[in-house]
Amino acid sequence: MERIGVGLLGMGTVGTGVFKALKSNQDVILKRTDTLFEVKKILVQDPDKKRQAEDAQSLLTTDFQQVLEAGIQVVVEAIGGLEPARSFIERAFEAGCHVVTANKELLAKHGSELERLARSRGVQLLYEASVGGGIPVLGTMRHLLKSNRIHRITGILNGTTNYILTEMASKGTPFDEVLAEAQKLGYAEADPTSDVDGFDAAYKLAILARLSFDAEVPVTEIPREGIREITPGELVLARRLGYAVKLLARGEQYGEKGPVSLAVGPALLPLTHSLSSVDGIYNAIHLEADVVQDITLVGQGAGEEPTASAVVEDLCNLYCLPPSKFIPSEETLLLPSQHSGGSRFIYLETAQHLDEGDAEGLKRRLQAIGLPVGETGISRVTDGSGVAFILRRWDPLYRGVLLAELGLEVSCLTDRPVHGSSTVEEAVRLEAGSAV
Amino acid sequence: MERIGVGLLGMGTVGTGVFKALKSNQDVILKRTDTLFEVKKILVQDPDKKRQAEDAQSLLTTDFQQVLEAGIQVVVEAIGGLEPARSFIERAFEAGCHVVTANKELLAKHGSELERLARSRGVQLLYEASVGGGIPVLGTMRHLLKSNRIHRITGILNGTTNYILTEMASKGTPFDEVLAEAQKLGYAEADPTSDVDGFDAAYKLAILARLSFDAEVPVTEIPREGIREITPGELVLARRLGYAVKLLARGEQYGEKGPVSLAVGPALLPLTHSLSSVDGIYNAIHLEADVVQDITLVGQGAGEEPTASAVVEDLCNLYCLPPSKFIPSEETLLLPSQHSGGSRFIYLETAQHLDEGDAEGLKRRLQAIGLPVGETGISRVTDGSGVAFILRRWDPLYRGVLLAELGLEVSCLTDRPVHGSSTVEEAVRLEAGSAV
Repeated sequence: MERIGVGLLGMGTVGTGVFKALKSNQDVILKRTDTLFEVKKILVQDPDKKRQAEDAQSLLTTDFQQVLEAGIQVVVEAIGGLEPARSFIERAFEAGCHVVTANKELLAKHGSELERLARSRGVQLLYEASVGGGIPVLGTMRHLLKSNRIHRITGILNGTTNYILTEMASKGTPFDEVLAEAQKLGYAEADPTSDVDGFDAAYKLAILARLSFDAEVPVTEIPREGIREITPGELVLARRLGYAVKLLARGEQYGEKGPVSLAVGPALLPLTHSLSSVDGIYNAIHLEADVVQDITLVGQGAGEEPTASAVVEDLCNLYCLPPSKFIPSEETLLLPSQHSGGSRFIYLETAQHLDEGDAEGLKRRLQAIGLPVGETGISRVTDGSGVAFILRRWDPLYRGVLLAELGLEVSCLTDRPVHGSSTVEEAVRLEAGSAV
Repeated sequence: MERIGVGLLGMGTVGTGVFKALKSNQDVILKRTDTLFEVKKILVQDPDKKRQAEDAQSLLTTDFQQVLEAGIQVVVEAIGGLEPARSFIERAFEAGCHVVTANKELLAKHGSELERLARSRGVQLLYEASVGGGIPVLGTMRHLLKSNRIHRITGILNGTTNYILTEMASKGTPFDEVLAEAQKLGYAEADPTSDVDGFDAAYKLAILARLSFDAEVPVTEIPREGIREITPGELVLARRLGYAVKLLARGEQYGEKGPVSLAVGPALLPLTHSLSSVDGIYNAIHLEADVVQDITLVGQGAGEEPTASAVVEDLCNLYCLPPSKFIPSEETLLLPSQHSGGSRFIYLETAQHLDEGDAEGLKRRLQAIGLPVGETGISRVTDGSGVAFILRRWDPLYRGVLLAELGLEVSCLTDRPVHGSSTVEEAVRLEAGSAV
């Protein structure tokens, strides 16, 4: 049996979860890894604050140096944000400690430098909990898809926005009300910017792109759109036409070591797509690769226990699985994400009261001038009507054409990409003729 | 760089896929594992048969001894069935070779003995491809959920039956017709028994139970029901009430090292459950564990490339990941699966033509005698009507009560378990109050 001393930085949701899981599952971990993990010191800001885990009290300190000197081999960083987390991690490496962290912002912005520093000191940096909460997606990519070339990633990577969109769609409640409710329940932060404007999802996408495509992209360059502008009327009509609206993080690589495109923004998925039913606080990642075809991983994207699971699994893996051979690459060429081609969902609201017959008339008029209009839907919204179309091809110029041709007083006009036909239908097509 | 000689047994769908993937992805594998896998000999029954992979021709042999003597370190068994696969694997172990296999029947029936034999010879036996095709579920349980106690598994483990149910539900076509079509397309075998009667799913469940619960259960003792009796009318009414009917493999363990219950059979899942939208040839496994809460893995359950992916990943993992510490246990107590308690879906067909009003009347009569009837639906079927109820509690005695009380001439009466409320709703309930 090996004894490993752990220094824990932070005793919020993640830190508390890790402390409790190391205790409650000590026997399982010992049996399966022959390693006993002992938390030796816990760094906190306020040692007098009342804590959930009362037996942690005697381990608290406000001095990072005391953590480093407590006979530890691993630092678990559960503070979040850039500083002081980054300095603590660098000092931990310099002291010869491995580091496990859930810090997506730090990893997205400075992951490569930190990986290089860890390597130069002969220690490891693991960060499974930074993407997808409890979902072991980084481990799957690193250890279980080694013979596969991953060429596309589509993810629902933010639990707060997925919860808000699910509530808006199922209850017809506007964004502001659902956000306020989510804040009351503790599902959204007082300042929700990082979640609802897509920053959090962009951090996670940058981390996934580094591991799967070996692509180094400054996170500020990832095109990013949030969910503030989405209305319940849009969600209802999208569903009626057979689609779910999700905040998707999409990454694609064109050829090995080739350029990539990355983007975060609301998009439509057919209800037959494996991600379309991922609701509430769940996260999911759909990976497309050359041999396995496609794999979807679904799980709780945040919360004390799922996140603690990912951190504790990383602790075990420091001693059970081979260290990463990942060598951060030079900056990768980022292609603009496609704004034309593919299907597009158009949603608009107008003060006029329209019915099904009007919608059919609009559709025929647009088809008459050559626009490739598919399914069409109409619904009542406060003070008027909501109208939705699927356009089978898209060009940004169509916006102006649409507005001119419809001849309606339009209070909002949204256009959103429609992603991926059903993975099932694609698979059936590809597999036709071979045994199942 | 290490060179590893591989002997391939069988050149059907799986063997061909492995041969092609080792070639097409040789560079990726070499880069990530520093290992070059070379197929040295291929055992086939008929060396003169025309093959897809023409460059395999010079490697073919009909003599297993020639494979063993070709300077190999690993045998990939892709023949399937019990014999001669089992004898070949034993001889491979005796010759000091690792074995990678996709053989679910052999692993389900003799996995423990084979694991023990491998261990005694100092070699490894890996079999990721035996469950869930390309989905890396065994690797995830072994390497990425080490600190978790898995207590429940729910899986869609057979692609053929899932394809048939999906087609029946979407097109309203009866079982026999869809089966014949699936056989024509190559999605079902000429003798479909192993798939449609649930044997294949039971094999896979036995393998999952061994790894996740450390439970050794004779596969013949797993309660098993197939999909032959399912009618399109049942699928349509289930969906109208908010459920999908799936052939589910379910395993649960009661306490660590405790007894288990295992069963394969058709069951209803709420449409909000992450498995309910897994359609067509896709497979999925939903794992519930004490720290991570729940993880769902979805992917293609069969086919040349997904299966080859799992085999080739195993080949890499022989040299990259630590060998299994799994010690097969003594036989585990198998509890009968629950036949009472929980919700139940009742479906019956009658020659009488009934309408919505009749259904409401039936519901009120059943409620009047104390049956906990919930949602009710009615539909036209060939020669009469289909009627469906959800009973909120179930006792096998209710079947007789129902038949007596309804006073209808009933041509079929089906009762099926309703599994798991929405994982999302459960999670929201559990998480309420903590940050997302």
